[in-house]
Amino acid sequence: MAISLTEISERFGLELVGDGSTLIDGIAALDEAKPGELTFLFNPKYRGKLRESEASAVVVTAGDKDALSGAGLIAEQPRLAWAKIATLFDTSENWPEIHPSAVIDPSATLGQHLKIGPNAVIRAQATLGDGVSIGAGVVVGERVVIGHNTQIHSNVVLYHAVEIGRGCIIHANAVIGADGFGFEYDQTAHQLVKIPQIFSVHVDDDVEIGAGTTIDRGALSHTLIGASVKIDNQVQIGHGTKIGSGTVISGATAIAGSTKIGNNCMIGGAVGIIDNLEIADQVEITAMSLVSQSITKSGRYSSGTGLMPGLQWKRNVVVFKKLDELYRRIRKLEH
Amino acid sequence: MAISLTEISERFGLELVGDGSTLIDGIAALDEAKPGELTFLFNPKYRGKLRESEASAVVVTAGDKDALSGAGLIAEQPRLAWAKIATLFDTSENWPEIHPSAVIDPSATLGQHLKIGPNAVIRAQATLGDGVSIGAGVVVGERVVIGHNTQIHSNVVLYHAVEIGRGCIIHANAVIGADGFGFEYDQTAHQLVKIPQIFSVHVDDDVEIGAGTTIDRGALSHTLIGASVKIDNQVQIGHGTKIGSGTVISGATAIAGSTKIGNNCMIGGAVGIIDNLEIADQVEITAMSLVSQSITKSGRYSSGTGLMPGLQWKRNVVVFKKLDELYRRIRKLEH
Amino acid sequence: MAISLTEISERFGLELVGDGSTLIDGIAALDEAKPGELTFLFNPKYRGKLRESEASAVVVTAGDKDALSGAGLIAEQPRLAWAKIATLFDTSENWPEIHPSAVIDPSATLGQHLKIGPNAVIRAQATLGDGVSIGAGVVVGERVVIGHNTQIHSNVVLYHAVEIGRGCIIHANAVIGADGFGFEYDQTAHQLVKIPQIFSVHVDDDVEIGAGTTIDRGALSHTLIGASVKIDNQVQIGHGTKIGSGTVISGATAIAGSTKIGNNCMIGGAVGIIDNLEIADQVEITAMSLVSQSITKSGRYSSGTGLMPGLQWKRNVVVFKKLDELYRRIRKLEH
Repeated sequence: MAISLTEISERFGLELVGDGSTLIDGIAALDEAKPGELTFLFNPKYRGKLRESEASAVVVTAGDKDALSGAGLIAEQPRLAWAKIATLFDTSENWPEIHPSAVIDPSATLGQHLKIGPNAVIRAQATLGDGVSIGAGVVVGERVVIGHNTQIHSNVVLYHAVEIGRGCIIHANAVIGADGFGFEYDQTAHQLVKIPQIFSVHVDDDVEIGAGTTIDRGALSHTLIGASVKIDNQVQIGHGTKIGSGTVISGATAIAGSTKIGNNCMIGGAVGIIDNLEIADQVEITAMSLVSQSITKSGRYSSGTGLMPGLQWKRNVVVFKKLDELYRRIRKLEH
Repeated sequence: MAISLTEISERFGLELVGDGSTLIDGIAALDEAKPGELTFLFNPKYRGKLRESEASAVVVTAGDKDALSGAGLIAEQPRLAWAKIATLFDTSENWPEIHPSAVIDPSATLGQHLKIGPNAVIRAQATLGDGVSIGAGVVVGERVVIGHNTQIHSNVVLYHAVEIGRGCIIHANAVIGADGFGFEYDQTAHQLVKIPQIFSVHVDDDVEIGAGTTIDRGALSHTLIGASVKIDNQVQIGHGTKIGSGTVISGATAIAGSTKIGNNCMIGGAVGIIDNLEIADQVEITAMSLVSQSITKSGRYSSGTGLMPGLQWKRNVVVFKKLDELYRRIRKLEH
Repeated sequence: MAISLTEISERFGLELVGDGSTLIDGIAALDEAKPGELTFLFNPKYRGKLRESEASAVVVTAGDKDALSGAGLIAEQPRLAWAKIATLFDTSENWPEIHPSAVIDPSATLGQHLKIGPNAVIRAQATLGDGVSIGAGVVVGERVVIGHNTQIHSNVVLYHAVEIGRGCIIHANAVIGADGFGFEYDQTAHQLVKIPQIFSVHVDDDVEIGAGTTIDRGALSHTLIGASVKIDNQVQIGHGTKIGSGTVISGATAIAGSTKIGNNCMIGGAVGIIDNLEIADQVEITAMSLVSQSITKSGRYSSGTGLMPGLQWKRNVVVFKKLDELYRRIRKLEH
């Protein structure tokens, strides 16, 4: 597959610089692109690298136009142009149709143009919208509803009554709708009793869910994932938690039950958020922070100590453990 | 499904207040319950919300009885009553029988009343107790033993020789018995050599294991999970680790190899516990703490700095990195 | 299976002490070994335990030879001897051949002596080397390449065009090649736009990847895992990240995109490493540290506060949150 720079320019509405007949057969990073490939200048500080790049053309902002030594395209948002142009070179796979080994309950409601991989299981009364794509080995539980054009990758498990919106992508081995983690200690019988998790998970439209991510069903209300939420790999979301629309959650983050997160938040990777909190809209949490109290104001929040060489770290931790005492000693000095 | 308040009262031994003929067709949270639903007052501080609730009846403690404005049930432990009553409204699914697509080795020993989903694989010499339920796509390895009435959800993988007790629940995509992480550097050949993980994992009765959780097999002794241990999603448990009975482990926690954890501990979410430690009974670890030394006394333990606005955090971290120096300066001032 | 001490001695080149006709039918930890079993003294500080051990023989270093009360074997590296001897007692399973339920595209290139489990799926134009073992329910995407003698456990998903080297082991439910986490906010349309992840993941020879681990495909360059890298369970590796050869990564660690990690690093468990960093060779990161800046020098690095009893921790955290202010008060006292 090769396409001329002129055609890319016209298709995505980008101003052309230089020879439009240049054929482009791929994209690559600035320092890895080879002849025939298109690359991108995302940050003016790498302008110096443009000369060394073997790329046949570069996408830059108008402000970086003069840094071009050869052909190029001008974009207001080079990263957005990248997102669009990359679709030309996407060779991701899909199942061509419904594989005969798929086990589909006759009571399921099936939309048109479905793609269902080998050994997928569609259980009783499930509903699949038009254009839905189901990978190999996926298990769609009873009464599950999947909206139009949603794509579910291999070996995902959707427990009973889960609802997924339209245009969603769920990556391999994610589990949606397993039991929330709820037990009550029976003071008479002296044992933990399981609290049935009888509510479900509702995922709104245009949501992406990463590989190995788990989202639990609720016990007293549904777990809700708002529209256009983007969730990375291996994220854990507890029962009854509500995630506001447009919020982005990076990998390995764990969010406990019954917490409400606002719209358009940015949750860094490996963050922990405890249960029963409320987090305002447009809150940013940096990587590996622990959120143990509600956040009422938008803004950026962090926790942790920063990284140090091991010996320095050990010495400082010793003092951390007596900080309270130290504080009182300083007050005494002041008096 | 609808049931009268009188019948709920009698079935679970709860004192009835008001009209026992009230029909209940579901349960829900206090602020989400609709007419026909039963709700719960778990904490006296929400007594004020009882008036606004549309629920047809409320479960309260005797102490909160006077807060009822309509029908209700009196329970010593409203959360325990919830756990029991919720079972009435549980519509979770099961396989009706053994699906013909399941691949079952003729040498496997099969109990009575088994439920086995499509494409499940039961390998040679595995033993399944009575009433065992196996989800779609589950892989039960050679010589695995599964006790009576244990339920294993879809796409779980049990490696060879793993033993699971009675009445356990294992959620989707969990992996029990993969190789522990063990290598030795060969100083002659200058390479890492894999240490075979020839022991197994033994899970006692009444254990729940969350979706995506991984429990590794041992190298020099079995990995042991005690009776009634409850493990949330995406927990990682290393080889040779022993978890005492009744211990509860929240999601995304990682426990390294050869560590012994006592009985009835509460391990918060996203906790890290390093290898070769011993942790006493009834120890509570708060969310996202790192345990890097043994704990000999029961009690509550924490680590971390607490969350701060980003700017405040940065300034404090700068000082943290010279805490040791600061401490010496204070001592100098004191002298 | 039982083997004489003499035969073990000869097979692995270890000096024999005592009765070589002693039959060994297993190995076990020092304090758990029973008669007939071989055990190991890894650390001189446990010499005292040798007398109490019921093991029939013990592997020790030459320096600990005099601590033997019965039969034994002398090894330069007892842990390395363990790694080798344990292979004698390894009963892990494999599929005997290609199971008839496997779904193999006719365009796939198949090596010799393949083992493919039930319901595995091999898609178009995939290439499997000689001696490759594929577990039940594994999905091998289009154009995937798997090198000779690599073993892939059940329910693993390899997305399209992923390349795995020779002699690798990938444990159950790992996902290699799912989409990296990349979106760009379209300032005109006011929405997040997905960046297609059109590159792949290349895993070199002799790599082990743990259960539930996820390694994302790249967007502008391939994600690269170097030769002999060892990755534990539930590790998350972002798109475009490069891991140098011989590096060992413990469980539950999360590494964000486009980061370059050197050779022979040791990354502790539950570590977080943010995106776009460079980490030198032979860097050790202790458990649960956050790496948020590049590391240019080899050595050991840590972050965090250490664990404390809850009350002490709370008091110290209060002071941590005003450390910067405290620092200024100390400077004032000094002046």
